[in-house]
Amino acid sequence: MPKLVVQKFGGSSVATVDRIKKIAQIVVKTYKNGANVVVVVSALGDTTDKLIGLARQIDFNPDEREMDMLISTGEQVSVSLLAMAIHKLGKEAISLTGAQVGISTDSAHTKARIIDISTKRIKDELKKKKIVIVAGFQGISRDENITTLGRGGSDLTAVALAKALKADICEIYTDVKGVYTADPRIVLDAKKISVISYDEMLELASLGAQIMQSRSIEVAKKFDIPLHVRSSFSAGAGTQIIKEFKIMEGVLVSGVALNKNEAKVTICDVPDKPGVAARIFKEIAEANINIDMIVQNISRTGFTDISFTVEKVDLNKATKVIKSLLPKIKAGGVLQDKDIAKISIVGVGMKSHSGVAAKMFRSLGKAKINIEMISTSEIKISCVIRKGKAELALKILHKEFGLSKKSGSNK
Amino acid sequence: MPKLVVQKFGGSSVATVDRIKKIAQIVVKTYKNGANVVVVVSALGDTTDKLIGLARQIDFNPDEREMDMLISTGEQVSVSLLAMAIHKLGKEAISLTGAQVGISTDSAHTKARIIDISTKRIKDELKKKKIVIVAGFQGISRDENITTLGRGGSDLTAVALAKALKADICEIYTDVKGVYTADPRIVLDAKKISVISYDEMLELASLGAQIMQSRSIEVAKKFDIPLHVRSSFSAGAGTQIIKEFKIMEGVLVSGVALNKNEAKVTICDVPDKPGVAARIFKEIAEANINIDMIVQNISRTGFTDISFTVEKVDLNKATKVIKSLLPKIKAGGVLQDKDIAKISIVGVGMKSHSGVAAKMFRSLGKAKINIEMISTSEIKISCVIRKGKAELALKILHKEFGLSKKSGSNK
Repeated sequence: MPKLVVQKFGGSSVATVDRIKKIAQIVVKTYKNGANVVVVVSALGDTTDKLIGLARQIDFNPDEREMDMLISTGEQVSVSLLAMAIHKLGKEAISLTGAQVGISTDSAHTKARIIDISTKRIKDELKKKKIVIVAGFQGISRDENITTLGRGGSDLTAVALAKALKADICEIYTDVKGVYTADPRIVLDAKKISVISYDEMLELASLGAQIMQSRSIEVAKKFDIPLHVRSSFSAGAGTQIIKEFKIMEGVLVSGVALNKNEAKVTICDVPDKPGVAARIFKEIAEANINIDMIVQNISRTGFTDISFTVEKVDLNKATKVIKSLLPKIKAGGVLQDKDIAKISIVGVGMKSHSGVAAKMFRSLGKAKINIEMISTSEIKISCVIRKGKAELALKILHKEFGLSKKSGSNK
Repeated sequence: MPKLVVQKFGGSSVATVDRIKKIAQIVVKTYKNGANVVVVVSALGDTTDKLIGLARQIDFNPDEREMDMLISTGEQVSVSLLAMAIHKLGKEAISLTGAQVGISTDSAHTKARIIDISTKRIKDELKKKKIVIVAGFQGISRDENITTLGRGGSDLTAVALAKALKADICEIYTDVKGVYTADPRIVLDAKKISVISYDEMLELASLGAQIMQSRSIEVAKKFDIPLHVRSSFSAGAGTQIIKEFKIMEGVLVSGVALNKNEAKVTICDVPDKPGVAARIFKEIAEANINIDMIVQNISRTGFTDISFTVEKVDLNKATKVIKSLLPKIKAGGVLQDKDIAKISIVGVGMKSHSGVAAKMFRSLGKAKINIEMISTSEIKISCVIRKGKAELALKILHKEFGLSKKSGSNK
């Protein structure tokens, strides 16, 4: 049986007609190598943002069902153009919307979850030797309304299709060559990682590496779907994302990530009583605000300070929620701080090695970088520091954990 | 039971966000007057042409199935934006694609024919007191591919929906105030016609009045659906299009139409034998070229000249077909003439009045305008003249048949 490959191309890979022609060549090359190919495509460049802009001119908070109707057109344009470009190269191709494929979702418009994927239509078209091109990011609800899967949803479409079709591999084509040990725009000797585990990629994605949507990596992990993040613009292998046990040689730290999109909220002089923290974070959750790190300082004389970080876009909303809560919990006041950065080291090797955290804190201390908050998981350590020191911290840690010395592989 | 109104808005009526807001007001006003409202919308302004341009950058003759996938997005954008604009005015509305409505067509991509319309979804939404907005110009084939109905297809969607839903009226909103006795840009005292028959409108539409797609008028006639052509930009009645017998007072000539988009082909010295003309027009038909007028001159000495008119875009194709045919039919040669215009007078009154043609020819003759070809039907007379005399001819006939004197009504 021939290999089945799912290939996903993001918005920057289809931003212009010339780029569409270029990715048609990548797809046709894979097909000519004997594989069955299912392609998932995002909307052209900034199309989605333009459509959202159009809607906002009418209503700043448009109905979400109509929003999905509107923005799902973006992918429909790119899949049909890619099909034409593949025809022009002499191969048969057919484009399909989420509804035509049968990507069933719930009815949570603009952030729907996939319930089920019917593989019949795709399999029928593959049997006819066609390259199948699927509109990413979209599905259809049980009541026949068009839904979208949220930002980065095309990654999810690709991974979910790879699962449903039992694909041999899911390739994520993007505008970078793969996952790096640190942001190569800041750390000039950062190296491309050739193999990484799902968990590490998950930490790197959620920490701001922004190559793949986190939810899609979770799904890939759950169903053990091998991913390959690679470049639309240059040949050569990218970064493979696979199960941890398959990575032969343990590496202490795989990469260092920087996130400057968070802000800190501090609630001062909170009565140190059971239930107060629970009350605060219940209200925050009800306002639909995602919290990242939480730190509670040592209680002095029955009062404590509670700090947490949120995405900057949620900062004012979070502060407002807390302000209205202050009299009820009898706390002293609330402070905002936008001038922070989060620096994180990620690596499966940490699980079995002690001393990694100590080494991180010592390195930052030596450089006179003050650590304001700390949060850890089995495979990562994050520290909040002053924003002005962020790039310096990234370079120091990248060097300290020996990432610069690598020769393009961390196997 | 409340009245059911189908309202259709063309591309120029939704060309900008401000215009979308404006037509939302028209729709909501109709709804507030107690009617059930189903709205059909075309793509925004020149969206369809832009999408076709994008496709042509990839392949000058793109696959038609993919073309439909591409251009059907235009209407999906406009229906969702209109739904948002109606929500903003405080009324409930829902947008639906051709597929969601259940507009079943054959598989003739880019020029599909409607086979059947399921009214279930629309009726369900109307029962929920929603304004239903349907994407014009599109449908879905039995094998679940998106189809489009050809240029002007949104008119057809509106008329077909009016029929399927047993609507009380189908309103066609456009950028003119109605149907005029002649093109008001040329004949300054042309008057808006308040009532006209389907047949007259059909002649005026196919003769170049370009307000409504001919096929949609044919469907309206067949099922006796009252049409009302009116302006998106100004209030007040437009032109009602109804059954002939309902027009109370017979009018000799309803309007004068000018068409400068045709060209003439003349085949010289054709042997005057049975079957030759049939052979010529069979080949032309097989090349998918539509012919308008045909004139065969009086035979002299066993040879004749045959002239016909075609759309200018088909002129070179037609000439090529004839050239390759010349040796086979032993004809002398072929001539092209782009410098012609067709002037036509239309009116149901002609059926019962003789002398209309004579009056037309006499008027043109008095002004030294030579008539090169003549074609007649029960309700119209068309003459081919030199293009340079076209505007003059229009003004003369408009005056001669008393159209200028009317006070805004021809009842």
